[in-house]
Formats: sequence, structure tokens, C-alpha cells
Amino acid sequence: MRDVSIAGVGSTSFGKLPDRGIVELATDACREALADSGIPHERVQALYLGNFVGERLADQGALAPIVARRLGLDGIPATKVEAACASGGIALRHGYLTVTAGIHDVVLVAGVEKMTDIPTGDVTAALATAGDEGLEMRTGLTFPGAFAMVMQAHMARYGTSREQIAAVSVKNHDNGAANPKAQFRKPTTIEEVVSSRFVAEPLRLFDCPPITDGAAAAVVCTAEIASQHTNRGVRILASGQGSGPVALSGMDDLTSFPATVRAASEAFGQARIAPGDVDVAEVHDCFTIAELVATEDLGLLPRGDGGHAAESGETAVNGRLPVNPSGGLIAKGHPVGASGVGQIYDLALQLRGEAANQVDGARIGLAHSMGGCGAAAAVHILAHD
Amino acid sequence: MRDVSIAGVGSTSFGKLPDRGIVELATDACREALADSGIPHERVQALYLGNFVGERLADQGALAPIVARRLGLDGIPATKVEAACASGGIALRHGYLTVTAGIHDVVLVAGVEKMTDIPTGDVTAALATAGDEGLEMRTGLTFPGAFAMVMQAHMARYGTSREQIAAVSVKNHDNGAANPKAQFRKPTTIEEVVSSRFVAEPLRLFDCPPITDGAAAAVVCTAEIASQHTNRGVRILASGQGSGPVALSGMDDLTSFPATVRAASEAFGQARIAPGDVDVAEVHDCFTIAELVATEDLGLLPRGDGGHAAESGETAVNGRLPVNPSGGLIAKGHPVGASGVGQIYDLALQLRGEAANQVDGARIGLAHSMGGCGAAAAVHILAHD
Repeated sequence: MRDVSIAGVGSTSFGKLPDRGIVELATDACREALADSGIPHERVQALYLGNFVGERLADQGALAPIVARRLGLDGIPATKVEAACASGGIALRHGYLTVTAGIHDVVLVAGVEKMTDIPTGDVTAALATAGDEGLEMRTGLTFPGAFAMVMQAHMARYGTSREQIAAVSVKNHDNGAANPKAQFRKPTTIEEVVSSRFVAEPLRLFDCPPITDGAAAAVVCTAEIASQHTNRGVRILASGQGSGPVALSGMDDLTSFPATVRAASEAFGQARIAPGDVDVAEVHDCFTIAELVATEDLGLLPRGDGGHAAESGETAVNGRLPVNPSGGLIAKGHPVGASGVGQIYDLALQLRGEAANQVDGARIGLAHSMGGCGAAAAVHILAHD
Repeated sequence: MRDVSIAGVGSTSFGKLPDRGIVELATDACREALADSGIPHERVQALYLGNFVGERLADQGALAPIVARRLGLDGIPATKVEAACASGGIALRHGYLTVTAGIHDVVLVAGVEKMTDIPTGDVTAALATAGDEGLEMRTGLTFPGAFAMVMQAHMARYGTSREQIAAVSVKNHDNGAANPKAQFRKPTTIEEVVSSRFVAEPLRLFDCPPITDGAAAAVVCTAEIASQHTNRGVRILASGQGSGPVALSGMDDLTSFPATVRAASEAFGQARIAPGDVDVAEVHDCFTIAELVATEDLGLLPRGDGGHAAESGETAVNGRLPVNPSGGLIAKGHPVGASGVGQIYDLALQLRGEAANQVDGARIGLAHSMGGCGAAAAVHILAHD
């Protein structure tokens, strides 16, 4: 298997972008990534595109071939992968796999979602397709409802306090405030979080991510090719993917997602490093509580310790283990199919020393992208090249 | 790269299956494929699932993890790929690629779509997302309309007659009549085809595939593993994938799809065989005219010769080059995300000598799966093991 690098990254701003359609968002991010890489677009041999509900929210399937052609990449294999909100992470994985295995030398990876020009109820219904319709969602359960149950379970099992969970929102909003591509750029306070309106009790508005338009992209290639075109490449040390119960009723423990545990185990094994070696992480905080569960499932923090770590500043940009310095999905925004590639954009900047909220001396970064309430997860470990 | 085989295949009946949901259809086909292969399900390391519009028609995304778990494959990487109606073919390709490259040893590939419990207008609108919404489909163009233009162009350019195109429908209905899994099991006549009602002039009802529920599956593994479990394995000699203009306005020539040409070129190059070596083909006849264009783009017939070949019986089961002995999408049915894997099911039976419409001495088979009006194509070449 060959060494694989990310030669360049690109991202649109995340937010309400009424002037850009789903195709334009994706191509904007791809063009930026290609320019950043220094690799001529003619060298791209395949496109993997993460997108969740383009067929529903943008009336657009067959999106990967459209984007390929719009970039002048006529004819190349262009494939959309879908694993709900992990679509972006799993798209990156397929770029990585096909390059490390010698199938392709240069692959463009992108993620995109266009969500803000649709009524919120329709967006919620579309996102609910990430649950198990036959077993559960037809009851009317939504994702805020599902994660509200996860929050209850974490509070009950580990004594995690409402304020500790709110500290995740405060931290991520603080981080987003400094990120020029973030949707929310205003700090918040514990008081504001815990007094915001209920979405699904005990989960409140400030525990949730916004509805977001956005796209991100990465040029994935052999380390050798990357080094010929840029001195800012970032190595992909490992890639892990796992699946898990899609219905909550299939989970043995609402405070842990087996898909994440499995993907992390695979990735750490491949990279031959331990969770303690990670300098900075971007994890799937689709709700505040999801960040706590992710950091624990990834082994970055002991079980039940996520709340304390957020409250004590351990996961702040200048803490022992910075988590979501980009602002995460909660403040940076959550264009669902793009979010996993957006994490890669932010981590690449961190490892290149160019991030808005730069973590001093960051050499090893971890990205965790999750779909549904633990349906699927992708974990990537990146390193300064 | 390692030799790859299909150790087993499975398929539901194609048709109106009101008692089976999308998850049940997929798991039924997968269980049949696993049983057929003789490989214990615990050995499956990944699932690739082709599905086009499950989020719209069945309110179900995150389908691959659901299917994996229902099969007792908890935790494995489970990925949906989408390239409109080529989703199944491209799912197979990812099974092939990850096995030949040594990423996995045993991969389950499936395709599924659940379409018949939705009003026809909603199905047509969902399928229209395989076109370019921004450039074209928002005008109200549908896929029958798009292929009606392809039909006009082929008739104008090559002098193809209405009756020659109808001969494709007659042939495929004849074939479907003998296929126990086909949706349409009644022969038709040229007269019936050319007098059926217009769907989009000059395309008539009997030029179109039905709306179909169905799923198909294949167990893809190293040739070595296959040989340990079955003596009915089928080799995958080659896999090609291409993309093309999604909007008709981007096509230089409405009588040829560059995605197919590219995928075929890649596949024939890999397999080191010529189109003349193919004994039997299952091609993407989403409309009668699409079969003609496919056989010409694949190099199986000279340009403009498709109509004559259908009329003369050259592409009949007992002809020089049997095309769609299963009945094709037109008679067997077209559960869009499943169709590409359904072709593999039928070809595997052909190469094992077990097909309903058995082609004498079939040793080399070709499968061609296309998305949209040339948006994407996958070509696989299979051989008797």
C-alpha cells in the first residue's frame, strides 16, 4: 500500500448562501482545493463526492458526474457515496483507499449539501431518513429527539451536568467566532445555552447545529505526487470505517456508538499510534452531547469524562486536547454531506500551521465523521507531512 | 492486483412486491447470494449497496448499515453508492476494486429499489433527479422525454425504423416471458408496441420499462476463496467506469453516450479481449432505444446497426450476439438502484449454464449499467471460472 497525502484543500464559507446552488458550491470548493494543491486538474483520475439528501433537498441526483464535468474532468469515474452525515468522511476514505491501493494516483474528494432554501420541516424530514424508517422513524422520532435520549442517558449514567454539556456549545461558539468560514461567529454563554428554547427536552437550541449550505474538497494523491507540487501536503496515516445499529432500539448502550469505536480501532491500529498521540481532533458534534460521546468512543477521553473535559477547558484550543477548534458542526455549520470533508479542510490547515484557531505544534490530527445516531462512522488520522 | 470471483448471487423477483419493504428486499437478495456462495456470512468484510432514490421513495437513507446489521454483519464498513440508475453497477465495481486491491477479501454487493407504493408522478419526479436540475430538468423534461430525443436522433442519423426499435421490445418481452424473476412474462408483437400509447413521442409505452420493486446481490471475493467454497464461481475479468454529460445540452451527439464508451474501453483493455469475444450481454435498456445505443457504444455492433440487429434476430437468445436474455430492464423490470446488480445475477447464471434463457456455450459475459441519460456507466466483463 502506498503513502497517501492531501495535496490541497478547499472550502466554501458555511452558512446561508442563497446565490450558490448545490453544483456551484461543490465546484467552488473543488476549484479551491485544486488551486491549493498545485496539481493540474487534468491529473485527477476520479471523483468521490459525499452528499446525503441532494435528491430530496436540491432535486439533484447524479451529482458526481455533474461536478466532474463542470470542473473539466469529463469522463472520469465520478461516484457519490452516502452514509447520512458521514458521507463526507466516507468519500475521503474512498479517495484514500483507491490511491493507497494503486487504483488511482490523484483523486478529488468533495462533500456538499444545500439546505437553506427548503422549509425547516422538510429538512428535518429529509434528515430523519438517516434513522430506521421501518423500525423507528415512522413513529415521528427526529434526530434532535434521538440525541435528547442520548443526552438523558449520559447524564443518568455518568452524572454529566447540564452545564458541562452546555460548555461544549460555549467552546465551539468561541472557536467559530474566530473562523472566517463559520456560520456562527458570535460567542455564547452557559446561561444563554441553558436558557435557549427546548428542541427536544433536555436538548435546547444551542445544543444543535444550524441548517447550512456548504461544500469542502481535498485533493488526495500519492505522497510522491504531492511532494512534487506542494510543500504543504498533509499525510493520511490511516482510515477506519464502521457501521452500527441505525435504530436506537438496537443499541445496547445509548452512551456509545459502536461504529465510532470500530472505525477508531481500525484507524489507530493502521497508524500505529495511541489516542494520546493526537494533538487536535475534529469530531462529529451534530449535537453537544455527540461531541462528548465521540471523544469517549474515540478513546481521547475516559468514559464519562467528556463533560468535565469541556467544562475544565481541557478540550479548548489551548487545552491539553483541542477538540473542534474550527467551531465544529455546532458553530461552523453542518451541511450534512460536506461536514466530513470540512473537518479535513480544517485539520489540514491545523497541520500546516495555517488555522484560524491554530493549535500550537499540532502534528497529528484526527477527524471523526458520523452518520445518523451511530449508523456509520469514518475516522481518519492525518499528520504533518 | 488479485483475481476476483463472484462466489454467489441472489435476486428477489422483480415486480410489484407490496409485502416487502426496501430493507427486506435487500436482505432477501443478500441472504440468497450468501447461501449460493457457500461462504459463511461472518467472512463478509464490507457491504457496497447500490440505491438511487431510497431517501425519496422509501424515506430511507443510511440503508447500507441497516442492511448489514439485519444480516448479522454488525459493524462492517457499509456504504451506499449512487450514480442514478448505474448505482448497482458501480456498487459491484467497488466490491471488485476493494477485493482486487487487497483491501478486503470478501465483500457483499447489493442493489435495491422500492418504487411501486408511490404515485407514478412522484416516481417520475424522483427519477428526474438523474438529470441536470439547474440546466435542464427544471424545464419539466423527464427521462422518457430525454430518450425520445435520443430515439429521434438515432432514426434521423441512421435511418433506424420505428419497427426496428420495436423489435427490441418484442425480443426482450419474449425473453422475459421465460424468466421466472421477470416482472413482465407475456410476449408482445411489433404491432402492439407501435400502437401502444405515446409516453413522449415517438417513444411509446412498450418502449419503456415498468416501475419495479426488487433487489439483487453478489458475493465478491478472491478467486482463491471462491474456489474453496463453490465450483460455480464466475470470474470478474474487468471493471470500467465512466461519466458523461448529465444535461442533454452538453452532448455532442445524442446517439452516443461517452460514459459508456469510456467504461467499455477501460474494461476491454483490462480484460484484454475484444467486443467480438463477448458471448452474451446484459445492457442498460432503460428504453428500447437505449439498448441500441448501448450495443453500439460498447462496440458490440457497428454504429447504426442496432436496429437491424434486433430486427434480424442477431441479438436474440439464439442469435450471434444475445443481448438481454433476461428480458432486460424493459421486461425483467427496472428497480433502478438494483438493476446493475440484477444484470450480474443473470450473467452469472448464464456463465454457470443455469439461466432460464440459456445461451449455448456462454463463456464471456458483459454487463453494462448506465445512469441518467449518459451521466454514468459501469461495464463489467465476467467469465466462466
